[in-house]
Amino acid sequence: MSIARHYEAISKAIDANTKVYIDRLREAVAIQSVSAEPEHRQDVVKMLEWAKKKLESLGATAECVPLGTQKLPNGKIIKLPPALFANLGADPNKKTLLVYGHLDVQPAKKEDGWHTEPFELHEKNGKLYGRGSTDDKGPILGWINAIETFQHCKINIPVNIKFCLEGMEESGSLGLEEALRERKDTWLADVDFTCISDNYWLGTKKPCITYGLRGVSYFSIEVIGCKQDVHSGTFGGSVYEPLADVMWMLSQLTDLDGTIRIDGLYDLVSKVTVEERKLYESIDFDEEEYRMTIGAKQLNRHSKSELLMNMWRYPSLSIHGVEGAFDGQGAKTIIPAKCTGKFSIRLVPNMDGETVEKLVLGYLDKLWEQRGSPNQYRAYQNHTGRYWLTDFKHPHYQCGARAIKRVFGVDPDYTREGCSIPITLTFEELTGNNVMLLPIGAGDDMAHSQNEKMNVRNYIMGAKLLAAYLLELSSM
Amino acid sequence: MSIARHYEAISKAIDANTKVYIDRLREAVAIQSVSAEPEHRQDVVKMLEWAKKKLESLGATAECVPLGTQKLPNGKIIKLPPALFANLGADPNKKTLLVYGHLDVQPAKKEDGWHTEPFELHEKNGKLYGRGSTDDKGPILGWINAIETFQHCKINIPVNIKFCLEGMEESGSLGLEEALRERKDTWLADVDFTCISDNYWLGTKKPCITYGLRGVSYFSIEVIGCKQDVHSGTFGGSVYEPLADVMWMLSQLTDLDGTIRIDGLYDLVSKVTVEERKLYESIDFDEEEYRMTIGAKQLNRHSKSELLMNMWRYPSLSIHGVEGAFDGQGAKTIIPAKCTGKFSIRLVPNMDGETVEKLVLGYLDKLWEQRGSPNQYRAYQNHTGRYWLTDFKHPHYQCGARAIKRVFGVDPDYTREGCSIPITLTFEELTGNNVMLLPIGAGDDMAHSQNEKMNVRNYIMGAKLLAAYLLELSSM
Repeated sequence: MSIARHYEAISKAIDANTKVYIDRLREAVAIQSVSAEPEHRQDVVKMLEWAKKKLESLGATAECVPLGTQKLPNGKIIKLPPALFANLGADPNKKTLLVYGHLDVQPAKKEDGWHTEPFELHEKNGKLYGRGSTDDKGPILGWINAIETFQHCKINIPVNIKFCLEGMEESGSLGLEEALRERKDTWLADVDFTCISDNYWLGTKKPCITYGLRGVSYFSIEVIGCKQDVHSGTFGGSVYEPLADVMWMLSQLTDLDGTIRIDGLYDLVSKVTVEERKLYESIDFDEEEYRMTIGAKQLNRHSKSELLMNMWRYPSLSIHGVEGAFDGQGAKTIIPAKCTGKFSIRLVPNMDGETVEKLVLGYLDKLWEQRGSPNQYRAYQNHTGRYWLTDFKHPHYQCGARAIKRVFGVDPDYTREGCSIPITLTFEELTGNNVMLLPIGAGDDMAHSQNEKMNVRNYIMGAKLLAAYLLELSSM
Repeated sequence: MSIARHYEAISKAIDANTKVYIDRLREAVAIQSVSAEPEHRQDVVKMLEWAKKKLESLGATAECVPLGTQKLPNGKIIKLPPALFANLGADPNKKTLLVYGHLDVQPAKKEDGWHTEPFELHEKNGKLYGRGSTDDKGPILGWINAIETFQHCKINIPVNIKFCLEGMEESGSLGLEEALRERKDTWLADVDFTCISDNYWLGTKKPCITYGLRGVSYFSIEVIGCKQDVHSGTFGGSVYEPLADVMWMLSQLTDLDGTIRIDGLYDLVSKVTVEERKLYESIDFDEEEYRMTIGAKQLNRHSKSELLMNMWRYPSLSIHGVEGAFDGQGAKTIIPAKCTGKFSIRLVPNMDGETVEKLVLGYLDKLWEQRGSPNQYRAYQNHTGRYWLTDFKHPHYQCGARAIKRVFGVDPDYTREGCSIPITLTFEELTGNNVMLLPIGAGDDMAHSQNEKMNVRNYIMGAKLLAAYLLELSSM
């Protein structure tokens, strides 16, 4: 078999280059491309230019596309970092793969609890510690390492590859969707499938492919009592306190176990089929390990399947907080005048945002009437974002699955994520074709947190996986 | 009658000096003695020294007593402003009056919504605008103006006067109680009665004397779920969310109309007698004006008496907020790991703090059991302060009442305050004698708020009232 032979050669070459690849990641981690911190904006630009050179050295044509400006909370207007669009190969007889990734990172300071300097890659016990190692510089370098190896081994890449790399993902991907939308009928027109490596294995040992994400609708309940905050000693007993109203409203949204009380909401949720249920049962997931990792005394569901379903395929409602109330340390005796309670609901198939908004606001209005408070009340939806679900039996996913089997010797778990990755929906919509989430990092990589790391094994096997996946795409 | 004749002379002299007194208040307001702002600490000291000189020019012996240091939230340690203790007269044949007041003020910035510079006294339509004009520099100057006039008119003051003036009242009176406690058997030993002018008329027209204050017990409900905040997308549906627990607990404390649900709490409250009820009925108080002032759509009680009783002689429970939850603007999708809900209960006769603590914590524990959440829970009392109630038929109060009748031509209303003035209890305890709250400012003076003012009329009539009161003390 040609794929097997080619893979053999590539795998060997990747193993031989481990040190080079780690040094490459070291170089990338050292660039402090923190998109949330304007003082690092030039580092984000530098990071994109670094990647542009790397892609060009592989023979790609690459362009840094300006995305306009951003208004900071202090009113200052600064330039957004550009997006990096690149093409590798333009063979009309080949299919075209779109690869997405981001080169910006979350903020990190040693004093936040890092054991080593966050922007110096530190190798210890087979782990590569450093900000961006797993989110998302490591996976992007996985592509570069894989493609370089194809060329080194003089093996033909069976697809054209387009790269869409951005520098604002950790700050809302400002400007990117507009830029992509403008290129829907040009640059994106010939994309046949999209692959994104920006999520993680469920656990630490078994690879997976991700075929679903939850959406989210965010709501606010605003109650106004007096025209300004008043002293609870002087005024307590004379006024209807708006915070008491907000607390009561928020307390009526869920049962103890998180079951949502909003009438009709669960009717929107697609029923679990026997086949789907089986899927959860076979997934490699240790509830007890999960519980220990997050430090919870008890989890919300008692079996593995029920827990995974509750995180992935059922809606959940979380109360986030109250704006306008006393939130500091210590004791302050205030009756807040205007309080805004905030909560959000995760959306799953087939909950459409519009119907959810109607049901939620209807329920809140009914609650408010039941409350009978004379205060001023307003409930509204802040924003909504769709869920995403695709068919993992799609031939494109089967390429990913075969690649995993080849590299790791196991069939992948098919997983979903409880959170949103909005760009997934954008690519699906704009290309009209299949999108696959193919994670490379492990479930304990601590993206966004202190001591983010990528295992050396995941980094090297990840390059092999991406190479094997590229080989499999010859069948598409 | 000698008092009438003396009052006549003093009243005329005060009228003649109106401009001098206003300029004196202008001088005091110009010193930015903001105790909460360490950068103004020297201004607080300057203000106390200014007052020391004024008292000395009246013939008093005065001393600025150091009160030690204060640790700021940032860890820095700075000197507390001293307390100003002064004696005017030491005639062993006279009784001794203690006068308390504070010379520090709340912070104020023009951009907060002041129509004029807060630290420049601005006279308009018979009102003296400026920070501290009514709280509490104006009333202290009332004493100085009154005493000066006695001397100017060569009228004997029938009592020795001791002054206790502080510079940290708006920041918790740090250090003062200890300094007073040390002087219990020395400086305070011969005090026969105490008078404090640091509260306000109920309305804007009728003078009053205040004979009661509510106490306060402050509580926290702390619930811990995970070991760190987690993303509601990724983790929502798998954990018992501590904020939902806290919201539910807080929602179970009161009924809509503020009635407190804590078992046994109302049993502690003294019953209203027919005589007491009559008192509220005759008080000059316009509910509709009050409602409009605070901008509430509807008040919590429907008759004047019920409303006043609910603010003064019944407990009230206010929820203040939650520490640890999302409290900013906009939308953040977090499941907070540790949330602390905060509320306080105003104490009235005969609710003793210890019993209240027991009842509240018992009720919270019962609620928590009812909730059945597996999260980590702890409820505790942050602090407690006693209510204060005295007998307004005391001869000392009758001196105040006769003075009001003389100056304003009306009998005073006898009022309480819903809030605490802890120093009242301190003086009552340490001197073992009667304490009277004799307000000078009007109910719409906006202490602590923007555009704080004192009416020229209240300022001038206030000096006359204090003089008339001093004359009446000859009967004690």
